[in-house]
Amino acid sequence: MLNSSIGIFDSGVGGLTVYRAIRERLPEEKIIYLGDTARIPYGTRSAATVRRYAYQDASFLYKQNVKLLVIACNTISSVALDLLTENFPVPILGVIEPGAKKAIQTTKNGRIGVIATEATVESNAYVKAIKTLNSSVEVYTQACPLFVALAEEGWHNHKATKLIAIEYLSYLQSQEIDTLVLGCTHYPLLKEVIQSVVGSKVTLIDSGACVAEEVEGLIKSSDTVTSNKNTCLDSFYVTDSGKRFSRIAELFLGQPIENLIAVDIWDENAKFKSNIDINLSKLSLNNL
Amino acid sequence: MLNSSIGIFDSGVGGLTVYRAIRERLPEEKIIYLGDTARIPYGTRSAATVRRYAYQDASFLYKQNVKLLVIACNTISSVALDLLTENFPVPILGVIEPGAKKAIQTTKNGRIGVIATEATVESNAYVKAIKTLNSSVEVYTQACPLFVALAEEGWHNHKATKLIAIEYLSYLQSQEIDTLVLGCTHYPLLKEVIQSVVGSKVTLIDSGACVAEEVEGLIKSSDTVTSNKNTCLDSFYVTDSGKRFSRIAELFLGQPIENLIAVDIWDENAKFKSNIDINLSKLSLNNL
Repeated sequence: MLNSSIGIFDSGVGGLTVYRAIRERLPEEKIIYLGDTARIPYGTRSAATVRRYAYQDASFLYKQNVKLLVIACNTISSVALDLLTENFPVPILGVIEPGAKKAIQTTKNGRIGVIATEATVESNAYVKAIKTLNSSVEVYTQACPLFVALAEEGWHNHKATKLIAIEYLSYLQSQEIDTLVLGCTHYPLLKEVIQSVVGSKVTLIDSGACVAEEVEGLIKSSDTVTSNKNTCLDSFYVTDSGKRFSRIAELFLGQPIENLIAVDIWDENAKFKSNIDINLSKLSLNNL
Repeated sequence: MLNSSIGIFDSGVGGLTVYRAIRERLPEEKIIYLGDTARIPYGTRSAATVRRYAYQDASFLYKQNVKLLVIACNTISSVALDLLTENFPVPILGVIEPGAKKAIQTTKNGRIGVIATEATVESNAYVKAIKTLNSSVEVYTQACPLFVALAEEGWHNHKATKLIAIEYLSYLQSQEIDTLVLGCTHYPLLKEVIQSVVGSKVTLIDSGACVAEEVEGLIKSSDTVTSNKNTCLDSFYVTDSGKRFSRIAELFLGQPIENLIAVDIWDENAKFKSNIDINLSKLSLNNL
């Protein structure tokens, strides 16, 4: 186990902000990254579908002999962490808990804002996680669907991005939050514009950076620090064309990606289907 | 065949602009619509993946006994029309040819612009289709990835949308186009802002409206006009949660959708896999 890899997965490139944070903290560990680019984005899908996809993603990485799985995606963390924890016998970390914990430690006035995808907001995962840690704080949430597209377009400092940020963030500002959780792994790319809109008195929490801290703690405390110097390249798997992933990954990492491999993970749900008995064809609209 | 339905499919809600155009022209026909919402968007995926998904979509509708299939999506039309035409024995119409034909009829200065998703632009499908009809016209293309998210957000007249449109359209304007093809079925929702940016001297071509004209012609000329008055509701199928589809569909249609059903189409590729021998796991990045 010592010398096996850390597995990180996301629906696409967003999780690379988490990858980067872990890479910086643990330079000797080998990392395997999976971006399910054929089915991105997860953030607008139903919980049932996200759970099915997440199971397939985790199965693929589990078979690569990982010692730890990091769900580098808020949507998956909010709806599928329980399912994965039950099904795979390795430690699994999501991004919600670490972000929630840091927000609680940071707020002084007890008013926390969370921005995320529609799915994460609807799941109420951050509100629950924060309230479980401290029921007296107030949590205000806002979905920002356009932020993902803007981050991927590389428009980090565009006038339009600022206008959109002003619109999305006005509700949270009116609630006088002093702490704002970036509840989507794409959002750290828009950190500057978000900070300029909310002002310097609001502290931004990058959930990806928080999970990297926990990964480091977990690996050190469980004595699974690698004994090899990491001399091989990290592996990056995608489920669809690598071209777009490569281009956007360079925006996220500031350097090109090597060792990018396309894989098919469609059949990883054989076990999931029989175990969990989920069959969309049997669901009517009312059950969704 | 007379009284069977017209099948329309898209990766999501975008094709509803085509549905609406056909619904208005042929009020007596019954329409079955499939939106593959679990795997939207197709516009940023590789051609191989879009072909696989398109085959599954078409299979599903074909089994519902349709007399005609309309691909209400530019991305699918540009990369999979040949595959579907070879595999399904009903007339199949894409949106590219009708849009290209209308653009040729409209332009006076022989300079045509096309805006579309990244996948449609990369496929070069509009350029090829227009040049095949008239090789002397000049065609200029521009991908507008943020337009889909803006249309779905309902920000049709937002200041940010205008800023983004100005940026995307400046290259085409500098080419002095007099005709602009809306090469993505989402874009008709942003018609007003696009027209205000390019000015009234540029004529916008809505490919969806053009295909509706062709559907009417084809049904009338092939004597398959329905003999029933359409008294039943049209059927709308989605592959993921109908909640989001419903909400956005109302933006597209100006009224709520009834008769919305969730279906599972994942197994429709059994035949496709064996016939076409596509296996992503065997593809290295260089083949994608």
